[in-house]
Amino acid sequence: MNGEQQLSKLRDQIDLCDQELIDILVKRAGFVAEVGKVKSTYGLPIYVPEREQAMLSKRRDEAQNKGLNPELIEDILRRVMRESYSSENDHGFKCVNTDIKKIVIVGGNGKLGGLFARYFRSSGYTVAILDVDDWDNVTEIMQDAKLVIVSVPIDLTCQTIAKLEPFLNEDMLLVDFTSVKTAPINAMLKHHKGAVVGLHPMFGPDIKNFAKQVIVCCAGRDSEKAQWLLQQFSIWGAKICKVNCFDHDHSMSYIQALRHFATFVNGLHLARQNIRLDTILELSSPIYRLELMMIGRLFAQDANLYADIIMDKDENIAVINSLQQAFDQALKIIQNKDKDEFMATFNMVKNWFGDYANSFLNESRQILEQASDQRNR
Amino acid sequence: MNGEQQLSKLRDQIDLCDQELIDILVKRAGFVAEVGKVKSTYGLPIYVPEREQAMLSKRRDEAQNKGLNPELIEDILRRVMRESYSSENDHGFKCVNTDIKKIVIVGGNGKLGGLFARYFRSSGYTVAILDVDDWDNVTEIMQDAKLVIVSVPIDLTCQTIAKLEPFLNEDMLLVDFTSVKTAPINAMLKHHKGAVVGLHPMFGPDIKNFAKQVIVCCAGRDSEKAQWLLQQFSIWGAKICKVNCFDHDHSMSYIQALRHFATFVNGLHLARQNIRLDTILELSSPIYRLELMMIGRLFAQDANLYADIIMDKDENIAVINSLQQAFDQALKIIQNKDKDEFMATFNMVKNWFGDYANSFLNESRQILEQASDQRNR
Repeated sequence: MNGEQQLSKLRDQIDLCDQELIDILVKRAGFVAEVGKVKSTYGLPIYVPEREQAMLSKRRDEAQNKGLNPELIEDILRRVMRESYSSENDHGFKCVNTDIKKIVIVGGNGKLGGLFARYFRSSGYTVAILDVDDWDNVTEIMQDAKLVIVSVPIDLTCQTIAKLEPFLNEDMLLVDFTSVKTAPINAMLKHHKGAVVGLHPMFGPDIKNFAKQVIVCCAGRDSEKAQWLLQQFSIWGAKICKVNCFDHDHSMSYIQALRHFATFVNGLHLARQNIRLDTILELSSPIYRLELMMIGRLFAQDANLYADIIMDKDENIAVINSLQQAFDQALKIIQNKDKDEFMATFNMVKNWFGDYANSFLNESRQILEQASDQRNR
Repeated sequence: MNGEQQLSKLRDQIDLCDQELIDILVKRAGFVAEVGKVKSTYGLPIYVPEREQAMLSKRRDEAQNKGLNPELIEDILRRVMRESYSSENDHGFKCVNTDIKKIVIVGGNGKLGGLFARYFRSSGYTVAILDVDDWDNVTEIMQDAKLVIVSVPIDLTCQTIAKLEPFLNEDMLLVDFTSVKTAPINAMLKHHKGAVVGLHPMFGPDIKNFAKQVIVCCAGRDSEKAQWLLQQFSIWGAKICKVNCFDHDHSMSYIQALRHFATFVNGLHLARQNIRLDTILELSSPIYRLELMMIGRLFAQDANLYADIIMDKDENIAVINSLQQAFDQALKIIQNKDKDEFMATFNMVKNWFGDYANSFLNESRQILEQASDQRNR
């Protein structure tokens, strides 16, 4: 047999292995579907970190004993579990609070409002939508509502809350989903006498499921009355992070406004240069491709949302001004070709990042390895 | 049976599936090892995109027919294949050019030089290292060398090439690995009469294997004499990208210098602010964590290398100056809270990115999904 013939025979064997693999995954998916039914019936949480950890740890040991890289089996099982979370959702979720007769989502035809509407319904709640065209029927829509969620663009949030005032009563829990929290919470406290909580879902409406997603929760008034709601989010798989609204807004200047502004500048700059994106990509290793991707992806999204996030509050502009100072300082170092000063500054920043610098490097390496498993680029 | 008992029984079944899965992967790894031996014996390439594509396409169809998400089986098989590339390497590679008696790597004790030394040796070449402490024995080390590779820090490249001149003869192929190309190629042409090629491996020394990695190749003199070398890199799995040195250096101002500078500025800025990194991370969804990661990872790396890459040539400073102009323009928009102007600028950049904006958004989503499969963050 020549090389190609030998290869062909071995490849047939490998194909048989891969077909067996499919059969096992099909069988496994069957058991996972059963798990979904049981969890839905008994209201057990979708995501149980301890069970995951214990299970992975056993499989890693078994792989090691059989001479297989434990990282391989862990990576595969984690990918399989992502699939399981989605399929466990198919059976709906336990309803934490059956006293809630109706939930009204203001702006529920929007993408984010729509996502929550789907999840509430699949947990057995009655959901009514109050969107721009529905205000003629607002009295009817708001009747019997126990939870009212405001999910509208940032610049409309406070006026929408004001507009709701005549239709709110003290029994209702009033909640908003805006990515700033102080102003909407103040507006809710002003226009509503009952319980108030500010939420900020830290993800876009395109998530496949809630597993491991963060929802920030800022107290307003009688926040304990929102306990069932947070528990419901946990059953969906989300992670709740409680902070006060000032700390939230301060942090978001950095997490959202600053990063989006910097990305916007990078995109604006590239678009003005005498370069071709495809040439640049041709020469880019995975890490540089990822850097370009992080810039370009912004411009596939909602210009209006980014304008609002960046320009929303004066603190953002102050933070962006201080970025300009850092820029000027670094530019001076480069213009003077002052290598010593560059190294000293580099090390100062390295110290600030502390252990995170190395752990970020390792984490990004892992991410890049996974990324380059994908379609040949 | 109560809920927990039912779950426990199902989980035992799932564990059995996962153990079967391990057994199949072990069996598969055995066949892959055989493939490695055959490929090594016959000098067949490690990475065969067409075979991969055909195989994946069949498994996707089979999965679909059995009600399994085809994306799931493709993702798993791609992860398994990454493992296979590594294990196929264990058997070494075919030696493309047996006439090459000796390869000298100048700076071969460095990380990148060391990586190539390992790969050359595992392909049957004799490799000698000429590092800083070896210059007393330079005549002996250079004797009979057919390929000389300069792999030293950027700021030492040209002087190292000059220092090599007395020990070079016309038979030798002279190559460098620097991340700028015009100056080193000119230096090589000046100090060497024989064949010259400038190479730029677009990856760090920590890659697990060469599969899909880019090596840029710039012609110097008699470049056809480097054909065997490029073929050897292809057998390792690398992708060769040929450009002229001016286009290379122009592109690298954008791919490397500009991006590293912008990241440096972002890090410097954060380090000066009144914020805690762990608070910011606590509130960050995966996409924001990734953005912070892309900043922090720089500072876990070599300050000296980054200083050289950014300050190396005046074009870099000109490009960075133009970034400052874009910054000022964007800042003015934000300070004026001029939403219309923001939207118009946003759309101009969106047009420049064209189809890439959307494809980057989709690609980054996939990457984030994979990233969040990993350790619970």
